[in-house]
Amino acid sequence: MVNGKKISWISPEIKEILEMPNKAEILKEAFSDLHPRDIFNLCEGLEPGENAEIVMALGIPLGIEFFQEFRIRQQRDIFRQFPKEWMKMVVEEMAPDERTDFLKALPKERYDELLPLVAQAERNDIKKLLQYEEGTAGAILTTEYAFLSRDITVKRAIENIRLQAFDRETIYYIYVIDDTRTLLGFVSLKGLLVADPGKTVGDIMHTHIMSAHVDEDKESVAKKISEYDLLAIPVVDNNNRLVGIVTVDDVVDVIEEENTEDIYKYGAAGKPVDYMGSNPGVMAKQRIFWLLMLVIMGFVSGWVIELYAFQLEAVVALAFFIPLLCASGGNAGTQSSTVVIRGIATGEIKMKDLFKVFRKELSIGAMVGLAMAFLAALRAVVMNKDPLLALTVGLAMIATVVVATTLGAVLPLLFNKLKLDPALMSGPFITSIVDIVSLFVYFHIAVMVFSM
Amino acid sequence: MVNGKKISWISPEIKEILEMPNKAEILKEAFSDLHPRDIFNLCEGLEPGENAEIVMALGIPLGIEFFQEFRIRQQRDIFRQFPKEWMKMVVEEMAPDERTDFLKALPKERYDELLPLVAQAERNDIKKLLQYEEGTAGAILTTEYAFLSRDITVKRAIENIRLQAFDRETIYYIYVIDDTRTLLGFVSLKGLLVADPGKTVGDIMHTHIMSAHVDEDKESVAKKISEYDLLAIPVVDNNNRLVGIVTVDDVVDVIEEENTEDIYKYGAAGKPVDYMGSNPGVMAKQRIFWLLMLVIMGFVSGWVIELYAFQLEAVVALAFFIPLLCASGGNAGTQSSTVVIRGIATGEIKMKDLFKVFRKELSIGAMVGLAMAFLAALRAVVMNKDPLLALTVGLAMIATVVVATTLGAVLPLLFNKLKLDPALMSGPFITSIVDIVSLFVYFHIAVMVFSM
Repeated sequence: MVNGKKISWISPEIKEILEMPNKAEILKEAFSDLHPRDIFNLCEGLEPGENAEIVMALGIPLGIEFFQEFRIRQQRDIFRQFPKEWMKMVVEEMAPDERTDFLKALPKERYDELLPLVAQAERNDIKKLLQYEEGTAGAILTTEYAFLSRDITVKRAIENIRLQAFDRETIYYIYVIDDTRTLLGFVSLKGLLVADPGKTVGDIMHTHIMSAHVDEDKESVAKKISEYDLLAIPVVDNNNRLVGIVTVDDVVDVIEEENTEDIYKYGAAGKPVDYMGSNPGVMAKQRIFWLLMLVIMGFVSGWVIELYAFQLEAVVALAFFIPLLCASGGNAGTQSSTVVIRGIATGEIKMKDLFKVFRKELSIGAMVGLAMAFLAALRAVVMNKDPLLALTVGLAMIATVVVATTLGAVLPLLFNKLKLDPALMSGPFITSIVDIVSLFVYFHIAVMVFSM
Repeated sequence: MVNGKKISWISPEIKEILEMPNKAEILKEAFSDLHPRDIFNLCEGLEPGENAEIVMALGIPLGIEFFQEFRIRQQRDIFRQFPKEWMKMVVEEMAPDERTDFLKALPKERYDELLPLVAQAERNDIKKLLQYEEGTAGAILTTEYAFLSRDITVKRAIENIRLQAFDRETIYYIYVIDDTRTLLGFVSLKGLLVADPGKTVGDIMHTHIMSAHVDEDKESVAKKISEYDLLAIPVVDNNNRLVGIVTVDDVVDVIEEENTEDIYKYGAAGKPVDYMGSNPGVMAKQRIFWLLMLVIMGFVSGWVIELYAFQLEAVVALAFFIPLLCASGGNAGTQSSTVVIRGIATGEIKMKDLFKVFRKELSIGAMVGLAMAFLAALRAVVMNKDPLLALTVGLAMIATVVVATTLGAVLPLLFNKLKLDPALMSGPFITSIVDIVSLFVYFHIAVMVFSM
């Protein structure tokens, strides 16, 4: 039993083995039955040089599979430790899609030095895959797909697939192509197995093929695979020629990446960067744009208070509730915008629901606003012994929260309608807008209440 | 070609067909070649009664597969439109994992009325699957897995699998079990195909099996499938008896659900509920807890201002910058907490990185804080013509932003260390804490600067 945890190996013991003269045999013996992910889990904490030795000891293919489990940054550190002969071998033997990601992260000098060493076939594959733009189907596809021609019989097709099995990413989906690699159809291995052995592949293939274009956004490719419950999707060029496939195991990575991007947007944190690998200057640059935008919006809220400075001078205690009101509006708005932006992303909330959403948030805002107003007014009565202040704060709180929940819900929907990213209306932005509105309302109410 | 969009059918035309006497034949003819998801994309906008008619026209299995594409709430609405005979049939024919989700959402009376109608075998399956707790492997597994015994030859095994192919969720992973259903090992269909036909299944099966326990959290199951790049994972009980499998197509749903939960936590929005299907009272209840908590934290920031009321009375213009400072600290803290909480979730940032993260955020805070301070001080000079105020605001801004970025990064890591959910330290909470600190700093600096 391995199951990730049940093994008793730990790094110090591996370090000991690495000092033995016959380390290669011992490691091969100990690891040969494990899934590469298990070996990764055991060895992730070792030094890059040690992991390079393990890769070499395990050899091909297990060592390469183990190497592919690391994050790109870790791969780069391990790669540096290889002798030249192994650098060439690793690049040649990596899965094409993993290799593309890895090579993109190499310094240009290293790449230029390495490429001439690599065998011609792989070199062509590398150049072709590197030309596709980041974030497209082309950038994540693998060229190791199983294929058949339409004229052979099912019986011969099964024999043929048996031969292809060793170096294909999957043989469960098989693509039917002609001499020009034009995609004609597809059969599943299951379909082949249950078909009449005397029929041809052309007889039994599906011609309604869900495919992706090489330039298609990878998020859209991932969505197709997951909505249609596919194990892989063929990727074609403008002439419907098969370029490669994207498999279901890549979908999870794409979804997680997209989710990270979404979450960064919710936090107005800019584009995701490799946190541990980037220097503070790069990260400050990522974050500064939205911070300065929000400072400028903050000037407006300052100006609102300035407008009502006369009232503030008369009742200084009004200032005590400024942070509370702003924070409460911000929190209520963050909640509703979070829920609605996520609902738009998952497809649960659509533009046609705008009015329903508005009414719903109006009710929610009224309910939670009332409770919050009661609490805030209570503080004004108990601590400040000022019923007029309590009335002002309570009324302003209800108004602020209702404005916050409705704006937080409606603005993302309107942004979506205008083909802008609804996530631009996430917490920090809603908060800035609500700050301005709530201060206006607060002081306006104050003027009315205190001059009663 | 279908590919989601390339078809010209639209709802009005389908509505017309539904009024024809021979609608069943026309629909069957038109839809029989399509993927159920394509039919769903075409028909989602129709009325529940119309979709019920389409399900019945398409029959088994396509109609059921089409029905399964809908969200649970939509399924419930369509189901209500079926005649009793079809209700029974739909329940019997649905995939076990989809059926469990659907039945859980039915009103209890409806369920009690329905169950006696269902065939005995399915009834037992339903009762067994419904007993597993929500959120566990048991609640998302399917019982339609392919299996073999260890003693038969590879040749016979392939023949056997060919027979199982029609009603199994996947035949690409095949589980080897004994008479008591104890899980002995696993073979892939690929492994069977390339193996010597005279060997036994026991000879070629893998015994290092990655499995999940029925009570295991579904997020952990999804993680295993995606980290180990599996197509399915066997789910076992305490005695290592095979209960069912979870397939890779469920993983994406689980990950999306977990991401929704995470995103709600970032927005302090409570537990996710079905937005369009819930009434405002339920949703207000989901949200009110954190809002009131944050109001109470807001009292503290009010108290800080109260402490320094004497200074505020002397220089009312200090109040103009309160929302700006609080918002800026909140935004900078939201950014760093977003990045760190997400980094913890994806495994990129670990507890051992605490000091590194702290130093990184200190630098980032100093850099962005300086830029923001400059902008804010500029406003104080230009609009308020008060250099002392500008100095106060500028210094307070730097301090606030540095405190915000470091607290936003360090608190989630400490929460994680204390086995608390790091997401509790997301934007709204960091903002509340930073509000208090920044007001203290601001007024403290003001007292020093103005009494210079």
